[in-house]
Amino acid sequence: MNRDPLYPTQSLIEAAHDRIRPYIHHTPILTCQTINALAGAEVYFKCENFQKVGAFKARGGVNAVLSLTPAEQTQGIATHSSGNHAQAIAYAASVVGAKAYIVMPDNSPEVKVKAVRAYGAEVTFCINTPEEREKTLQEVVARTGAIFVHPFNDYAVIAGQATAAKELIHDAAVQFDTILAPVGGGGLLSGTALATNYFSPYTKVIAGEPEGAADAILSFKSGTVEKAPYVKTIADGLLTYLGDKTLPIILEQVVDILTVSDADIVAAMRIIWERMKIVIEPSSAVPFAALLKTKDRFEGQTIGIILTGGNVDLGKLPF
Amino acid sequence: MNRDPLYPTQSLIEAAHDRIRPYIHHTPILTCQTINALAGAEVYFKCENFQKVGAFKARGGVNAVLSLTPAEQTQGIATHSSGNHAQAIAYAASVVGAKAYIVMPDNSPEVKVKAVRAYGAEVTFCINTPEEREKTLQEVVARTGAIFVHPFNDYAVIAGQATAAKELIHDAAVQFDTILAPVGGGGLLSGTALATNYFSPYTKVIAGEPEGAADAILSFKSGTVEKAPYVKTIADGLLTYLGDKTLPIILEQVVDILTVSDADIVAAMRIIWERMKIVIEPSSAVPFAALLKTKDRFEGQTIGIILTGGNVDLGKLPF
Repeated sequence: MNRDPLYPTQSLIEAAHDRIRPYIHHTPILTCQTINALAGAEVYFKCENFQKVGAFKARGGVNAVLSLTPAEQTQGIATHSSGNHAQAIAYAASVVGAKAYIVMPDNSPEVKVKAVRAYGAEVTFCINTPEEREKTLQEVVARTGAIFVHPFNDYAVIAGQATAAKELIHDAAVQFDTILAPVGGGGLLSGTALATNYFSPYTKVIAGEPEGAADAILSFKSGTVEKAPYVKTIADGLLTYLGDKTLPIILEQVVDILTVSDADIVAAMRIIWERMKIVIEPSSAVPFAALLKTKDRFEGQTIGIILTGGNVDLGKLPF
Repeated sequence: MNRDPLYPTQSLIEAAHDRIRPYIHHTPILTCQTINALAGAEVYFKCENFQKVGAFKARGGVNAVLSLTPAEQTQGIATHSSGNHAQAIAYAASVVGAKAYIVMPDNSPEVKVKAVRAYGAEVTFCINTPEEREKTLQEVVARTGAIFVHPFNDYAVIAGQATAAKELIHDAAVQFDTILAPVGGGGLLSGTALATNYFSPYTKVIAGEPEGAADAILSFKSGTVEKAPYVKTIADGLLTYLGDKTLPIILEQVVDILTVSDADIVAAMRIIWERMKIVIEPSSAVPFAALLKTKDRFEGQTIGIILTGGNVDLGKLPF
């Protein structure tokens, strides 16, 4: 196969891991007997809610920024995001002393804007439509000369996200039957699938997706990037559709995509909060919700789950 | 000094640790740069919210039950508690295959009753007054012949609770200036103070107490067990007053007791949830609230804090 030289091979993922290691947390794996009994499986949770900026996105963001040349870093880094990728890029830019320009919707929660600014990033607001976000980003790039780092459709970002599964496989030191991850734009999922293929080739990778943002399951069936028939879910980190870099990896490496309702997501999230005593965001609960919904399929298995982040607004909990 | 042979000496605490080790979690220590910046100190959190039954009480309960003779264990174990001690004794009894009899107030949350019964314990309800609890317990003991394990005024319980600070001191491997713990009946506080005296003698132990259950600070001043002028606090694990075994240890080993309001407690709890992504109960937030309230006193210090538990009703959060 004649692939892009940046395509995340095993050695590029290993290099990404070495590159980002000083700037990210090596997050713990947690297990819980009550949850194992409930799931009828042995479940290892990789806790990226404890990651820098509160989400796995720090891995991809740091790898992408550190992979730029010093000259490129001096130009600054730009992106659009209302969520964890905004903080990840702001953090990653601060690591190399680069300027970050973040386009955020004008209805972004104040706490998220503050967090981004706390890393020294410049925030530009826009109306919350995909078109306006894109237009505003292009204006910022034109004005500043900053380099755009895409939230997921970028091989350096994918290679960075792959390091979460790499650590999970290495640290748990068990033979996983299945690793579960959520899917939004597919950066984490494609990275997880590649890392699993390289470091635990007999392990299947399955994704969880909200019914209220069910684009990946359509793309998975049709083989082309599809949009969701409707978008309305509490899992606000998973609203986007796949990209031309993430979809081919997912088609090649992922076995299945399982959808869950918001009620499933909230119930799964509550079990994790109550039993494991950790704070995870709704998107993070999607794979565990999929496991609970299709228990028979996973019965007796050894399962890894990536808990993607812990950034929630405690004033607006669904309990 | 002519002390009770069960008084928790260094070697008795070490023996307690060896005894309970197979049945408890060796809980992690977490740190957070944002919290350090906020506190102006370097803070190590000992996460007993991840402990068996969701609270440090498992340590004392297991040590007390394992310290009984096989004949005593066969008689069964009895206690009264609406909270974590109930689960701890139910769990500890299940470890040795003993019967547990738990007296609980008839307004106990259903989830707590279920958790106790899930360990195979027999629950007897009573009206929620100290007198009725005591009377019902005595009836249960008379009927069953079970051995009563007090929630805190018991040297085996204190020795068990001491193992949390022992692990904190050992694992953090730093020179703590201060270790902070909350105080209710004083089981954790006296155990923490003894372990600190034995394993890190230059470290001061300071307690945090809710203003709405401010009995320990009175007892600390008068030298005799006092009751609180009024009892009304969100920190529902700290409502009780000291006992004749915990008070002398606290008078001897604890440097100070700092009180905090419910608003302080909720704010501290929220910071820990948001920044550290862990679920702790209000009582657990009391020492950190005390640290934030009296920052000048602790400026630049290396501080250990015991996060005592994570059992909260997610349907009734104070945010």
